Amino acid sequence: MKYELYYWPEIQGRGEYVRLALEEAGAAYVDVARGPRGTSAMMKMMDGHKGTPPFAPPFLKAGKLVIGQTANILLFLGARHALAPKTEGGRLWVHQLQLTITDLVVEIHDTHHPLGPSLYYEDQKPPAKKRTADFWSERVPKYLGYFEQILADSGGTYVTGRRLTYVDLSLFQIVDGLRYAFPKRMKAFETDIPSLVGLHERIAARPNIKAYLASERRIPFNEQGIFRRYRELDG
Amino acid sequence: MKYELYYWPEIQGRGEYVRLALEEAGAAYVDVARGPRGTSAMMKMMDGHKGTPPFAPPFLKAGKLVIGQTANILLFLGARHALAPKTEGGRLWVHQLQLTITDLVVEIHDTHHPLGPSLYYEDQKPPAKKRTADFWSERVPKYLGYFEQILADSGGTYVTGRRLTYVDLSLFQIVDGLRYAFPKRMKAFETDIPSLVGLHERIAARPNIKAYLASERRIPFNEQGIFRRYRELDG
Repeated sequence: MKYELYYWPEIQGRGEYVRLALEEAGAAYVDVARGPRGTSAMMKMMDGHKGTPPFAPPFLKAGKLVIGQTANILLFLGARHALAPKTEGGRLWVHQLQLTITDLVVEIHDTHHPLGPSLYYEDQKPPAKKRTADFWSERVPKYLGYFEQILADSGGTYVTGRRLTYVDLSLFQIVDGLRYAFPKRMKAFETDIPSLVGLHERIAARPNIKAYLASERRIPFNEQGIFRRYRELDG
Repeated sequence: MKYELYYWPEIQGRGEYVRLALEEAGAAYVDVARGPRGTSAMMKMMDGHKGTPPFAPPFLKAGKLVIGQTANILLFLGARHALAPKTEGGRLWVHQLQLTITDLVVEIHDTHHPLGPSLYYEDQKPPAKKRTADFWSERVPKYLGYFEQILADSGGTYVTGRRLTYVDLSLFQIVDGLRYAFPKRMKAFETDIPSLVGLHERIAARPNIKAYLASERRIPFNEQGIFRRYRELDG
């Protein structure tokens, strides 16, 4: 069985956390919307999936199951591909961390869209500047400080110790994205998060991830996704 | 074993989705922070829970497990108290819906805090007005229209059919909260969501929920929580 991933074809966005897990696992998958007529196939799934339609991409088709919500997809893949602990407590802990990353991703998106997702960035620049200032002074230290502490306390290579989980892959993406979107701010901040910076390096060097990042399957960052480089927001 | 719920003692907030599930299940629990020295006990758990500290309330202590993130707590309680389907597909579907409610809750909070959670509402009134206008014209129809459709298609009394799940309880809270925060806007909108309005009534009439809502355990809505009644935002 090949998985079918459905996500917007031109951005990393929330789909990227799923792509990283599929790539690390070496799972067979099709990134459907990047193929011919793929976006209309995606729309058809959303409108027509009787009974259990996804609210929004990404969603994953796995045999008969259609699973929506990024963290939910990772909960499913984590169990199937040994990217999460097997115990109930471990599984819930890793999912809890992923949901905290989900919250962080919303706040990253809100830096350029404080007035809501329907308006263009160009129509909300002054509030975006204020929200970004608060994000970097209050929220980044709180979120990344939290993950830094957990990682430093883990006594291992990864968040839960010696075994990789999908949360490590997602944290790689957070560091990578913040470096893209806020190069100046992030450079100054990185001295506070040595463990996360080390994690980013280790993930990037894993063979499957390294091959993925060098491939055309990895969509470059751009100004349509979650992480956007707007010079005026970079302090 | 008595569950220990840890959440801010003066608001419904995100803790309310957990409280509703515990109450419906008739589960034994202590709302720790509402007791003497409860808030400091909560803070101690957050700072001191070695290895797996929660990022923020609510979190639930269940024996040795400490589980954070609202939707994650409900995932756990749903399986324990028959508030979720037993099949893998059903369990993931209900969790997916809960995560969509989680997204909606963030957007509800952002109506009064578009510039971020660190600033006071009073310091962000004009952007709050803009964000709220967009929320009601674009986001409420999209989110509530989605749940309305699923409920109308379910052919039963609840979202998944004849059996109650924690998602039904959370949708009750969404309708209840929007009625509190935006009485005028919600009144006008309710003709579009007859199934959700019916669900709200059915949940409110369930014996355990009815008793809970009439008790002092149900904290009244107020202007510190997610749902805030600010007349200038009610159109």
